[in-house]
Amino acid sequence: MKSISVLGSAGSIGTQTLDVVSRHPREFRVVGLASYDEVDAVEKQVRRFKPKIVSLAVEDAAKELKKRLKGVRVEIVSGSQGLIEVATHPDANVVVTAVVGSVGLLPTLEAIKAGKDIALANKETLVCAGEIVMREVKRRGAGLYPVDSEHCAIWQCKEGQDPQSVERLILTCSGGPFRKASKQNIENATVEEALAHPNWKMGGKITIDSATLMNKGLEVIEAHWLFGIPYERIKVVIHPQSLVHSMVEFKDGSILAQIGVHDMRIPIQYALSYPRRLPVGKDSHLDFASMGALEFGKPDLERFPCLAYAYEAGKIGGTMPAVMNAANEVAVVEFFLKGKAKFGDIPRAVRRTMDAARRGKLSVVKMPPHVTATNVAKLSLKPVKEPVFKKNPELEDILKADGWARDYARLLLNGSTGQKID
Amino acid sequence: MKSISVLGSAGSIGTQTLDVVSRHPREFRVVGLASYDEVDAVEKQVRRFKPKIVSLAVEDAAKELKKRLKGVRVEIVSGSQGLIEVATHPDANVVVTAVVGSVGLLPTLEAIKAGKDIALANKETLVCAGEIVMREVKRRGAGLYPVDSEHCAIWQCKEGQDPQSVERLILTCSGGPFRKASKQNIENATVEEALAHPNWKMGGKITIDSATLMNKGLEVIEAHWLFGIPYERIKVVIHPQSLVHSMVEFKDGSILAQIGVHDMRIPIQYALSYPRRLPVGKDSHLDFASMGALEFGKPDLERFPCLAYAYEAGKIGGTMPAVMNAANEVAVVEFFLKGKAKFGDIPRAVRRTMDAARRGKLSVVKMPPHVTATNVAKLSLKPVKEPVFKKNPELEDILKADGWARDYARLLLNGSTGQKID
Repeated sequence: MKSISVLGSAGSIGTQTLDVVSRHPREFRVVGLASYDEVDAVEKQVRRFKPKIVSLAVEDAAKELKKRLKGVRVEIVSGSQGLIEVATHPDANVVVTAVVGSVGLLPTLEAIKAGKDIALANKETLVCAGEIVMREVKRRGAGLYPVDSEHCAIWQCKEGQDPQSVERLILTCSGGPFRKASKQNIENATVEEALAHPNWKMGGKITIDSATLMNKGLEVIEAHWLFGIPYERIKVVIHPQSLVHSMVEFKDGSILAQIGVHDMRIPIQYALSYPRRLPVGKDSHLDFASMGALEFGKPDLERFPCLAYAYEAGKIGGTMPAVMNAANEVAVVEFFLKGKAKFGDIPRAVRRTMDAARRGKLSVVKMPPHVTATNVAKLSLKPVKEPVFKKNPELEDILKADGWARDYARLLLNGSTGQKID
Repeated sequence: MKSISVLGSAGSIGTQTLDVVSRHPREFRVVGLASYDEVDAVEKQVRRFKPKIVSLAVEDAAKELKKRLKGVRVEIVSGSQGLIEVATHPDANVVVTAVVGSVGLLPTLEAIKAGKDIALANKETLVCAGEIVMREVKRRGAGLYPVDSEHCAIWQCKEGQDPQSVERLILTCSGGPFRKASKQNIENATVEEALAHPNWKMGGKITIDSATLMNKGLEVIEAHWLFGIPYERIKVVIHPQSLVHSMVEFKDGSILAQIGVHDMRIPIQYALSYPRRLPVGKDSHLDFASMGALEFGKPDLERFPCLAYAYEAGKIGGTMPAVMNAANEVAVVEFFLKGKAKFGDIPRAVRRTMDAARRGKLSVVKMPPHVTATNVAKLSLKPVKEPVFKKNPELEDILKADGWARDYARLLLNGSTGQKID
């Protein structure tokens, strides 16, 4: 039996993870749960799955939860330290990291250091700190099992094959809701339009990233670190039906593909049950006879520049992927989803922030403890003391670059840098 | 370096095998060649690949070859014994069995007994004597590597996966040239129409089998024995593009598929190089961006009854698959391809021969040493002495059933049984 901590338990992957656990009560039990501030959802989860420890990032939410769960035997913690406590709880042997954004990096690293296996749904962990994380994984002999459908597909296709024979990873990409949209329509797309993903029901951030194709870019970087394949040999193919989840091409021209219905419980379960496979419900079997045709095509980097930026950031390496990711996160979560920026501002904010980080001589912002979109106007620019871009960064450099890029993107999107964003 | 004997060296798989060998001269060398009567082709092959032994089945052809190769250091043998000598030559460690029809059975079995690994392109070996062959493979610890693109695909998809987790094998099937044809047009299809396979260039017999879907039926039986999966869990899916070569569905709903261009050198090479993969030419890599859509559908057993007959024969087991295969081989090679029967006679001949074998009380033919379509009229019917159908046959029973079915099908197709064929 595996004992699981779920970071991000109230989110899309978190709740589906708990669904997998409840389908296989003899295989899995829940040790820890962590969430942002979702008191109602987490209260229900605690009563049902009886974890030993629960964390809510927001302190007031944790207090409210304590009140509601009076008399229930569970340790309730809070803040970023609480998240790490859940990730490193001594009774857990697998940690599902399903929090959104680069906040997932530290608890994942701590869990690896504490000897846990990781079911990785937080792609920012590898995007921002791939080298550091993979070094730690090797040192500890930890299992790092991807939960993303694409990476889970590649993992399954590579399983049992000679690693030397891999020619290319082929990540499939639905193309998102704007696959056929004009440049102009993409520029001015509304939140509602951007959230209407054709195939997958997911959280807000990843759905917007799927619309800009940044999600695929993050996946390219993640695949690079997970599978140790250079960027030149990672290819993205548009596949609107999202039934082929990804592929591996071998030296001899053979391609192995993993195919299945749109059900994230399949990769979640595989990451938890590996190397075994457990049964799923009938709905989760694909019916070839009634399925339509599978189409494939090339991504259009002109309409979807974020994918090109991600390749670029990945190839530059160092702190650049963290910079790119942070700028994107700010543009999507704090601006576009809140109606404070246009869809077209997302790639522009990413581009400008990457350029600023690369030049290194630009201004760095003075950072008050909690800079948000609302108080960004209070920020001011200062000369760079040390370059944001570093080639072989320590964890601290990555966190600094991440913070710098967030603030820089905020200034940009608020029109406070003196640069025009559009 | 692997030392290879090629049975059926002048045929489609044989020549492509030699092409693979010549692309990788440091990996493979040729020890033996065997062919039916193709003196010109085999002479060139001997001069180029310098084998130690060569066999031509037809004695006059072997004599002619000896004359032409005077002074060349090669042993030249003939007849069915010659084929076995090539298959069991002490210097060979892999035998590619690419002869057409049930004539491949004995040399394959002898090669296994002599400790060779088998690259199996002759599907009749497993269709006729699956149980006996697999028993021998296990006893000798031999490698039995399928060369058929479908079985090679399944082999690759299963590699490294927990065998207990296989839910279903999914064999893809192009549907052949008559996929969209009416029943009436199929009934009266000409040889030319039936030989016009949409995707693959292959030998005549297998191309006709692809048009009746008997080829897929033989593959279902072959897959049953190769992978030890019951018929209920082997599914055929129509896939007109023939780019997905076959798939494996696992208990958790995941499907692994092997995809690639129409190039038999890929599965041939994999069977020879396994567990490694060797590079191929640029043509042999699939271009997803320019490839059209992949379609999938259900096979129509009413228009293509041979597929249903093969499932039926497989499930009945015993000598029935050999009977079915023999009747089909006669109907295709001796009658349809020679313009002596209608396309629609093929499934009818198979059906009637299977029925006759099952009833067991019908008449068995008196067999002159070489019964062919031309002298079949000289045959006469005699009461059955022992049943043609046996549940747990020895090799001898299988060979007898094969012979009986050939003669019975000849009588049927010549209208000599008193039964109407159409």
